[in-house]
Amino acid sequence: MQYFMEPKDVAIIGASQDFKTINGKILKYLLKHHYQGRIYPVNPKYQEIAGVTCYASVEEIPRDVDLALIAVAAVRVPGILKDCGTHGIKRAVIFSSGFAETGAEGKIIQEEIIATAKKYQMRLIGPNCLGILNASSGMIASFSASLELDCIKTGHLALVSQSGAVGFMLFNLLQEAGVGVNFVVTTGNEADVTVSEGLDYVVENPKTKVILTYLEGLRDGEPFKKTAEKAAEAGKPIIALKVGNSKSGQKAAATHTAALAGSGAAYKSFFDKMGIIQANDSDDIIDLAQAFVPGKLPKGPKVGIVTMSGGVGILLADRSEELGLKIPQLSKGLQEEVQKVIPAFGCAQNPVDVTAQSLNQGEEFKKCLKILLASEELDMLIVAITMATGKMAEKIGMDIAEAALGTDKPLVVSWSVGQVSKPGFDVLKDAGVPLYHSPARAAKVLGALYKYVNFKCGWKKTSGGEINLDRKVKVQKALKENSKVLSEHSTKELLELYGLPVTKEYVAKSAEEAAAMAECMGYPVVMKIDSPDILHKTEAGGVAVNISSAQEAEAKFKEITENGRNYNPQAKINGILIQEQVPPGVEVIVGLQRDPVLGTQIMFGLGGIFVEVLKDVVLKPIPLSREDAQEVLNEIKGGALLNGVRGRQAADKDALVEILLGVSQLAVEAGEDLLSLDINPVMALPQGMGAKILDGVIVTS
Amino acid sequence: MQYFMEPKDVAIIGASQDFKTINGKILKYLLKHHYQGRIYPVNPKYQEIAGVTCYASVEEIPRDVDLALIAVAAVRVPGILKDCGTHGIKRAVIFSSGFAETGAEGKIIQEEIIATAKKYQMRLIGPNCLGILNASSGMIASFSASLELDCIKTGHLALVSQSGAVGFMLFNLLQEAGVGVNFVVTTGNEADVTVSEGLDYVVENPKTKVILTYLEGLRDGEPFKKTAEKAAEAGKPIIALKVGNSKSGQKAAATHTAALAGSGAAYKSFFDKMGIIQANDSDDIIDLAQAFVPGKLPKGPKVGIVTMSGGVGILLADRSEELGLKIPQLSKGLQEEVQKVIPAFGCAQNPVDVTAQSLNQGEEFKKCLKILLASEELDMLIVAITMATGKMAEKIGMDIAEAALGTDKPLVVSWSVGQVSKPGFDVLKDAGVPLYHSPARAAKVLGALYKYVNFKCGWKKTSGGEINLDRKVKVQKALKENSKVLSEHSTKELLELYGLPVTKEYVAKSAEEAAAMAECMGYPVVMKIDSPDILHKTEAGGVAVNISSAQEAEAKFKEITENGRNYNPQAKINGILIQEQVPPGVEVIVGLQRDPVLGTQIMFGLGGIFVEVLKDVVLKPIPLSREDAQEVLNEIKGGALLNGVRGRQAADKDALVEILLGVSQLAVEAGEDLLSLDINPVMALPQGMGAKILDGVIVTS
Repeated sequence: MQYFMEPKDVAIIGASQDFKTINGKILKYLLKHHYQGRIYPVNPKYQEIAGVTCYASVEEIPRDVDLALIAVAAVRVPGILKDCGTHGIKRAVIFSSGFAETGAEGKIIQEEIIATAKKYQMRLIGPNCLGILNASSGMIASFSASLELDCIKTGHLALVSQSGAVGFMLFNLLQEAGVGVNFVVTTGNEADVTVSEGLDYVVENPKTKVILTYLEGLRDGEPFKKTAEKAAEAGKPIIALKVGNSKSGQKAAATHTAALAGSGAAYKSFFDKMGIIQANDSDDIIDLAQAFVPGKLPKGPKVGIVTMSGGVGILLADRSEELGLKIPQLSKGLQEEVQKVIPAFGCAQNPVDVTAQSLNQGEEFKKCLKILLASEELDMLIVAITMATGKMAEKIGMDIAEAALGTDKPLVVSWSVGQVSKPGFDVLKDAGVPLYHSPARAAKVLGALYKYVNFKCGWKKTSGGEINLDRKVKVQKALKENSKVLSEHSTKELLELYGLPVTKEYVAKSAEEAAAMAECMGYPVVMKIDSPDILHKTEAGGVAVNISSAQEAEAKFKEITENGRNYNPQAKINGILIQEQVPPGVEVIVGLQRDPVLGTQIMFGLGGIFVEVLKDVVLKPIPLSREDAQEVLNEIKGGALLNGVRGRQAADKDALVEILLGVSQLAVEAGEDLLSLDINPVMALPQGMGAKILDGVIVTS
Repeated sequence: MQYFMEPKDVAIIGASQDFKTINGKILKYLLKHHYQGRIYPVNPKYQEIAGVTCYASVEEIPRDVDLALIAVAAVRVPGILKDCGTHGIKRAVIFSSGFAETGAEGKIIQEEIIATAKKYQMRLIGPNCLGILNASSGMIASFSASLELDCIKTGHLALVSQSGAVGFMLFNLLQEAGVGVNFVVTTGNEADVTVSEGLDYVVENPKTKVILTYLEGLRDGEPFKKTAEKAAEAGKPIIALKVGNSKSGQKAAATHTAALAGSGAAYKSFFDKMGIIQANDSDDIIDLAQAFVPGKLPKGPKVGIVTMSGGVGILLADRSEELGLKIPQLSKGLQEEVQKVIPAFGCAQNPVDVTAQSLNQGEEFKKCLKILLASEELDMLIVAITMATGKMAEKIGMDIAEAALGTDKPLVVSWSVGQVSKPGFDVLKDAGVPLYHSPARAAKVLGALYKYVNFKCGWKKTSGGEINLDRKVKVQKALKENSKVLSEHSTKELLELYGLPVTKEYVAKSAEEAAAMAECMGYPVVMKIDSPDILHKTEAGGVAVNISSAQEAEAKFKEITENGRNYNPQAKINGILIQEQVPPGVEVIVGLQRDPVLGTQIMFGLGGIFVEVLKDVVLKPIPLSREDAQEVLNEIKGGALLNGVRGRQAADKDALVEILLGVSQLAVEAGEDLLSLDINPVMALPQGMGAKILDGVIVTS
């Protein structure tokens, strides 16, 4: 990526003298923004363009070139790439459309350029993208109209987008909001370089402090995950606008709870695990960018609100509380200090109402902000301004900016009127103070900062338990040898390898065996059909409970076997399980889902109606740490049920944590052959009494 | 209100020559915006101000005056009011602060002005408000800096706010967004005129089509409700920004589920019932205002999306689907029509990608919009623009405006770049086309329009069942005569008056009676302590189930009575209930809560953990119509449980509807003496088998 982002020289193939055309604009913007490298326009029509020598062909360029910029019609691209390859150019950005995005014909041309690139060991960005830029070196390889601005405000933000239009739209909005940008990468069709590679470059670059990304869908989750880990390690927040969640992802369909884990849910759990902040709109991602760029994080949840309108103060308190932030009552001492610098009819509590009057006068408003920022009673501050015009707006802006620059605490401004207050807006933008034009948006970003700081403090790279090679071989063999669906008993055999508490059970091959096993196990017992071809055992009449004598066991053996044969005459029946009957407890479900892109995720939920009616489940990418497993139990909505409510006994949560960790380890060792696991139910017994896995099914790839 | 909003003449008490002071600004804005009535400045210091004759005192004003505007220090207000009263002025707007909002002293002055106003039969707006305005007559009685604009854009929107600062902040934002405003009323401390009166005036005024309101808390729900009903009848949407929901309202505390119905929840259910659209931010309320002002509502949920960026199209589809809108696939025929007017590499499916290229050229983009708007396959349209500058932006704006003006369907624009596209923004604002600077906001307003149209179609004023006077007298007597808490048996006696299916039960006064009653009822029976002083019967050891013989009944009588005495030696014990034992079914809860402001609401939820752990309850203001009652059953998250899931039997929903209607009627007839009712549980039996009320408690005021 370095050659893409920091080229010493670039060639513009098909460069045009007409700065209104795409090929003209690329050259125009390089010149306009003072690219520090050499530019080689290539076009046989011209000797020079705007004072830059123009070459008739790639071959005529007198020296090696780091990067070729190609914006000609799709059909001409393969030939040009070949020329570039022959001439030793190793990097190309292809802007042109008309490739895989348009259908079969375009796809063929795309395959052709991929082959050409491979042949010459070239790397490609695009096609169908809007290019890349490195603002600090003036390397503006794009034709987006958003580059018409006179001067790019540079800063520590990097932007990597799968869509060119969205990427440069966000670039424009960032510039308008006064946020400096250093890198933009748009990857388009990703014939070669993916969004993950772009992200990896910007995350590693010391100039980057905050990363924005627009995603439609990753081609491979692994490199993205590694990059996200690097960002987490470095404390560089990634803010993502991921679209396409309303389309169902690919689902593992054989187990019925699989329907709950769409790929949108997989992304969400993955982002949560990696501390990636999720935006849901263009507004939203810009709002968040503004808040994260100053690099100030709150130490706790305590928000101070300063306002000139009681109403806006209440609104801010409402929205802040909803986000888990606290609006603490100020101590008597602090109130007294504040009261000295606000009018008598102001309010020194939190929200602090400084009144419109005090904003206009001398040093008092500024002093008030400084007093609040200096206090340990508050972790961050929202300053809410409503109507202010002209000079007064400017003064307010300056007072706030001074206070913001003098603190390590986050300070954001909600200034909810229109352009009458522009002089104030301009001061704040120049000073890099996060400015929002509505109260809820200001509260929202503080919620995100607080959430991120919690992530950052708790972050450590989770590595699963140590891999047991023997066991791994055994598991992978079992998964390969079995049919697509493993029976309950086979599934439990694998779970037992991980020390998981499956029910004691044996497979009886005859009625006599069934009676003997039941006798030996002690009554009551449960009897279940054991067949990889009968997934829904109850529906098939394949389950009997409360069996309490040898005679009953014999009779049920015959009945269940017959039921199974009637239900599915083709079913392979291994026998009938004779299983210990577990006393009642809280039923939970533990599962594994493999997302084709993001890998395996563990699923946890309360059993029965909680999953079926309320869809109350949590997903987490594997491997789980012990902390992750504990979190999972608290994250479900019905989590309180495990703690015992209204006279019920608390469930053995430790035992559930062990099961989650074991299942996570199974997923790690099983690898890609395991498509899904559904343990339903696990019976969580009262605290101290463990948990039992009553039923389970594995589906292989 | 008419004299406030349409005064033929106004007096400005303490008018100032200095247009920078508050008193000066009031005169300044009346002159600036060409007030059509007569203005009488009152100030002994001046002969005239800005050419308007000035009077030394109120008495010297030569004729009757409709409205006095008072913005002097609080302490001077009572005297001035008296002067006004003596001189026959019947209306005054008091801007001044320093009244009840500042504490005890201010409260005394406020009481004084209320008394003075009463004496002279004057009506007051304020104090501590920012005034009122009627834009079409130039009657601008305010000193807000937002009135500095050269010309107020008038239109069919009215704005009524309890906060002056928020009211005029919203006015400013509306003007900036190009939304015409006719009325603004800010009510401040509401010493006399309330926000409901202001709303009633604007709702009834034929110039009003859309109403915005900012609320901190109503003083009385009834007038507000009547106004909301008028608005619903007239099809005038009310959009409300209600703050203060994070503070707990007053709660009926005696029954334990009461904790679920905070006053925030009461407002929400009340707004839902009245079709009031709820905004959660200043941005949000302006967004919604823009969408409702054109008065175009969708006929169904089908959204067409036109974009120049695939990415924005996906984002819009995501957000629209989340709101319950549909993004239908276009028919082959329509796709063919569309394909004719977009480039070959565009996309004629929905979202329709017209590409940046087509926007620039001739008539094709406009044709595309018209084709889509003309089709019955779509109910509304989002046009999403990203980067466009200068002339191109202007052309895009004109094309969209022309399409929007030629359709009855809602058309909204998401144009998510900065001021580079201003020429386009200006065209759209002038044409009154709803314009948003982010995709999610555009989708959101369409969701709100669709929700409102559903409300409007389903709206009818709910009147409860006919009032049975005999029964009403009986109920009110029972509520007055009983102690604060009615025992289970007394509660059920009242419920039975409404034909509600309570358990068959008798109060046994002795062990022998208990045995005889149980014998007569048939086993098994349930036995429960009957005492208004023991609310939590199980906790007190006051409940026994599965009693199946006379001996057992005798023994339990003694045991339960003793348990009760031990639990609460002071408790009045009426006896022991002998109650039929109801077979298992789905347990639900039905309750009544009286909100001090908004009146009584009915509560419904699934019993047990659903209420206790998941807080899965619905509130509805009474009276309920049959449709309301049916809706309630579907609105709870666990509603599917009543339909039967995974082999369970469906519950008798009809029986539950009857119970809800009966309870609603009880609430209507009981009136203010009933503070709360908690029926917990109602056992819903399988379909066709009814439902039984197992337990209940009424708390009186």
